Amino acid sequence: MSIKNIGGNVPVAFHKVKIQDNFWEPRIKTNAAQTLYSQLNKLNETHRLPAFKMDWKPGDEFEPHIFWDSDVAKWIEGASYSIIVCPDPKMEKLLDEAVDLVISAQQPDGYLNVHYTVVEPDKRWSNLRDCHELYCAGHLIEAAVAHYRATGKRKMLDCLCRYADYIDSVFGVEPGKKRGYCGHPELELALIKLYEATGNEGYLKLSSYFIEEHGQRPFYFDIEAIERGEDITPTDALPPHMRGGERYEYTQADVPIREQTKVAGHAVRAMYFYSGAADLAGINDDQELYSVLKRLLDSLINKRMYITGGIGPAASNEGFTTDYDLPNRTAYAETCAAIGLIMWSHRMLRFDLDNRYGDVMERALYNGSISGISLCGNKYFYENPLASNGNHHRVDWFGCSCCPTNILRLIASLGGYIYSQSTADAIVHLYVQSEGELQVGDKIVKLSQKTNNPWDGAVSISVGLDQPSKFSVKCRVPGWCDSFEVGINGEPLEDVVVKNGYLQIEREWRDGDCIELNFPMLVKRMYANPNINEDAGLVALQRGPVLYCLEGTDNAEQPHRIFLPEDAEFEAAFEADLLDGVTTITIDALCLDDEGWEDKLYRDTPPVLRPATIKAVPYYAWDNREPDWMSVWLKESGS
Amino acid sequence: MSIKNIGGNVPVAFHKVKIQDNFWEPRIKTNAAQTLYSQLNKLNETHRLPAFKMDWKPGDEFEPHIFWDSDVAKWIEGASYSIIVCPDPKMEKLLDEAVDLVISAQQPDGYLNVHYTVVEPDKRWSNLRDCHELYCAGHLIEAAVAHYRATGKRKMLDCLCRYADYIDSVFGVEPGKKRGYCGHPELELALIKLYEATGNEGYLKLSSYFIEEHGQRPFYFDIEAIERGEDITPTDALPPHMRGGERYEYTQADVPIREQTKVAGHAVRAMYFYSGAADLAGINDDQELYSVLKRLLDSLINKRMYITGGIGPAASNEGFTTDYDLPNRTAYAETCAAIGLIMWSHRMLRFDLDNRYGDVMERALYNGSISGISLCGNKYFYENPLASNGNHHRVDWFGCSCCPTNILRLIASLGGYIYSQSTADAIVHLYVQSEGELQVGDKIVKLSQKTNNPWDGAVSISVGLDQPSKFSVKCRVPGWCDSFEVGINGEPLEDVVVKNGYLQIEREWRDGDCIELNFPMLVKRMYANPNINEDAGLVALQRGPVLYCLEGTDNAEQPHRIFLPEDAEFEAAFEADLLDGVTTITIDALCLDDEGWEDKLYRDTPPVLRPATIKAVPYYAWDNREPDWMSVWLKESGS
Repeated sequence: MSIKNIGGNVPVAFHKVKIQDNFWEPRIKTNAAQTLYSQLNKLNETHRLPAFKMDWKPGDEFEPHIFWDSDVAKWIEGASYSIIVCPDPKMEKLLDEAVDLVISAQQPDGYLNVHYTVVEPDKRWSNLRDCHELYCAGHLIEAAVAHYRATGKRKMLDCLCRYADYIDSVFGVEPGKKRGYCGHPELELALIKLYEATGNEGYLKLSSYFIEEHGQRPFYFDIEAIERGEDITPTDALPPHMRGGERYEYTQADVPIREQTKVAGHAVRAMYFYSGAADLAGINDDQELYSVLKRLLDSLINKRMYITGGIGPAASNEGFTTDYDLPNRTAYAETCAAIGLIMWSHRMLRFDLDNRYGDVMERALYNGSISGISLCGNKYFYENPLASNGNHHRVDWFGCSCCPTNILRLIASLGGYIYSQSTADAIVHLYVQSEGELQVGDKIVKLSQKTNNPWDGAVSISVGLDQPSKFSVKCRVPGWCDSFEVGINGEPLEDVVVKNGYLQIEREWRDGDCIELNFPMLVKRMYANPNINEDAGLVALQRGPVLYCLEGTDNAEQPHRIFLPEDAEFEAAFEADLLDGVTTITIDALCLDDEGWEDKLYRDTPPVLRPATIKAVPYYAWDNREPDWMSVWLKESGS
Repeated sequence: MSIKNIGGNVPVAFHKVKIQDNFWEPRIKTNAAQTLYSQLNKLNETHRLPAFKMDWKPGDEFEPHIFWDSDVAKWIEGASYSIIVCPDPKMEKLLDEAVDLVISAQQPDGYLNVHYTVVEPDKRWSNLRDCHELYCAGHLIEAAVAHYRATGKRKMLDCLCRYADYIDSVFGVEPGKKRGYCGHPELELALIKLYEATGNEGYLKLSSYFIEEHGQRPFYFDIEAIERGEDITPTDALPPHMRGGERYEYTQADVPIREQTKVAGHAVRAMYFYSGAADLAGINDDQELYSVLKRLLDSLINKRMYITGGIGPAASNEGFTTDYDLPNRTAYAETCAAIGLIMWSHRMLRFDLDNRYGDVMERALYNGSISGISLCGNKYFYENPLASNGNHHRVDWFGCSCCPTNILRLIASLGGYIYSQSTADAIVHLYVQSEGELQVGDKIVKLSQKTNNPWDGAVSISVGLDQPSKFSVKCRVPGWCDSFEVGINGEPLEDVVVKNGYLQIEREWRDGDCIELNFPMLVKRMYANPNINEDAGLVALQRGPVLYCLEGTDNAEQPHRIFLPEDAEFEAAFEADLLDGVTTITIDALCLDDEGWEDKLYRDTPPVLRPATIKAVPYYAWDNREPDWMSVWLKESGS
């Protein structure tokens, strides 16, 4: 097997990390015990999984939809991760059955897509722009790789290699091949996983082809539309994202990737596309492509990201609009997009150990992504607004149900985001109580974290080694922390070196050495860039990586009446019985009073502000109790 | 001719008032020279007026629409008023031609409606709920009365009496008659005008029938829908205002008027309905009905009115939603609804000389109604939002073009809103430089106002009399004024008596007596009731009766960045060359600065506020220059 070297460092795979904390471990267990099973029920109930029996006939109910395959695939991927971290023979059997059913649907030529086999068998590859055909292939490949890694069984991997080989025979620059690519990126990053699992460079090359083909002219989606007999003249009857320049941006195809300067179009498509490109840049040590990605990610996190790590404000294109356009109540901020941002920023850390990317990953992880799943693990948000008047609630499934299985696979594989390793470095990105087994050069380094993060900033990391060894431990200094303390084996560290937001401790490490870190968690008032018009004059509260919100169920006052005084004091306290255990923030705030407003709609003296105690809870945990209003941004008084 | 006595006082008709000021007189002239002519062109271009030739045939272009007649009628009404205040022989001839054409369309049985004569001749009276048939009749009657009063010619009046007689033969509680009424009130108040013009009590009775029939059960609009063969089962396919309780409220028919407690449904319909009811209460000295109307108007102005005097926040029903629901950017606040509020509140003053009603009339007049017409007199707003991002602009006509002709008739007849008279009182509601001829008991009292209102609060009113006479002069003390000065003939008035916001000076008046009033015009910070969620923490500026706004064209800063310090000083100055002459307000405000925000979307220190001079202009005059943003409500800092 020949695998190209990956530049920089590589993540420590989740199965090398054992999470043993109070925050994530219960989530991973709920994921295994509740989410995985309830989603399998949904996949059966909605005929997504049974559709792979390929017995649907015209006139039958439950016509297989173009993106159903991807939901099954992401569940297989998530289940594969989950049985590693939470062994479950019953689930392993159910998973195996599902895999067998999927495999059984493969056609003799390698093709594997339910809709285009039973519903529109004559339309294969006729509408790459809209029909998610290669997107489904990508998710099946990710599932196959995950299943192989989890079980060692090659059956799904081999099946998907045949499919990938067939795709390779259809698409490419070679004469006779279609110069197409998927309207919804995903296959690009999946092919790289397939390359990494198999060593077959053909998959790397095919991924590279798909990535570089985006934005080439003539526009493939016009070519295929003409072949379908469609009029491609832009018309006002089309939704805006299918007209003008936006129709190119929607699929990240306005210009080739190396010329792109802003993250635009459909948010999930963008995240998957750039994640694949980041993998490619890493494997090929492609500095040019990496620079492009750095510019793109910087422009995203500097101009187009919610404070939750949510991205893509608009429902119309499920994506981006203009710089600083970040409305709160109408925020689309799809759960999948936040997950995609975690994927992309995590990949960027391979090249560039910069806490900017670690911070973004952490922000999206503790806020805008896990907000997408209920604490009980079986209700979901598709959209993650930053304010609600009480009418936005979790549901147990969606017609287009990409988010539930996405959060499933994220949580099951969370261990994979904590550590990275390189020939000379052991790297800690996230502070999660866990044991990680790292390969640093030719040495095995066991890092054992003790921490009550995200509620407490104290962390101790003990180093386990067979024999003393010189290397660097690099620990992310979170951007939310103004100053921090670091000691080793009980002594303050002298010569603290921080580079790009990563503390670097290079020394000869001995078994049992312990790094003591303290990142003080103060309640921080957060302010938005003045270009964001909805947040002007407002303040949000953050403590450590956790963003807070007010919910109506904790606060009797109407949200618009509440003002946070500039000098308000915050009382943070852990409440074990609330929302599965959260640190809440209690504040002596002010509130508009009705005094003197009887029978008056307008007057020339301002309303009186009276004291009112308010309570903030973590944003990720909202809408887990009675339906009520919610707000992240609060008015500040005294400014 | 027998006309019942009207309780309280009666307005002095506009033709008894000569306006000679710098604010309204130019508008009345522009109305006569521009608006009247350009609207006639539009009525011809769009075939509204030529449709009365009754030569449309199926298959022809320009199918006469159900509400076209009302546009022509309101133009005739406005033209009739205008030729009195701005004599214009050419216009008088055009008006006469239009009147002749309208009259010529009357059917042998008295019926007069273009659509239901040439388009759907078999559908007469089949859909009173939706089809504006009696609404059009009402506007034709108002036009006929106006034309008769303006020219002394009875031709249109007689024509419409025949139509009204025919309507009387069709509708009523008597056996064999339809128990119907119009879905869009208007005929009610028109019939009272017809009664006042003719003395025929049958019209008063018919008006009373229509008013009292609203809200009776069984619901007439269901009866006629069943007769049309429609399924009246509420369905989600219907717009909300046609479903559930809202479908009754939409036409003010949820309960009979005497049981109504809130102003709901379609805003213009409500205003016309209650205006007619106020007329009826006045004529019949009906204290019960008056109490109902007082309760309704109070609930409207205490809970459902914009600070502009605009009403009806929602586009979906062109009307009301819930108490305190007054969003700014999406405010519907139809021009016609503000005009309707002027009509209703003006009528309430007949019974109850209370400056609450005078203030509301003045607020709607100087702000939310005249905002509906451009300074040049030929472009209009249908909707009058209180904030715009720059995409709301005046146009020269509408498909449903009720507002242009409504503002035409309002401005032409403005003199009629200034004074009232009774057996013992000469009453001044509005401060407009003008000469009014009042009949106080059996005496003619000439009041001559000198003032530069709305820019200056100094007013002198000289009294012209043939011989000394004892009566009261009652002058409204505007609600926007905290204290005022009053003198007579250069001496301060002793024993100042103010009752319900009207200064009362009872004495023996002599010819040449002069009342000197001063209502100091300070720039006032206005605040909204804390129940209005969008306005919490915001401030609006008002000076005298004029509400201000910021427009992008005067202010380089983005509106969301601007903060008005609590201690900001205001500099008000008249600018003769701006917007046809307006007093502007210049303010040393603060503005969010970009300092330190390069490449940062969120941070834990607030943006710096730097000084920024801002300039406010009257709200009514917005969007008369380059298209740009506008905002009435501003953030306040230091609170």
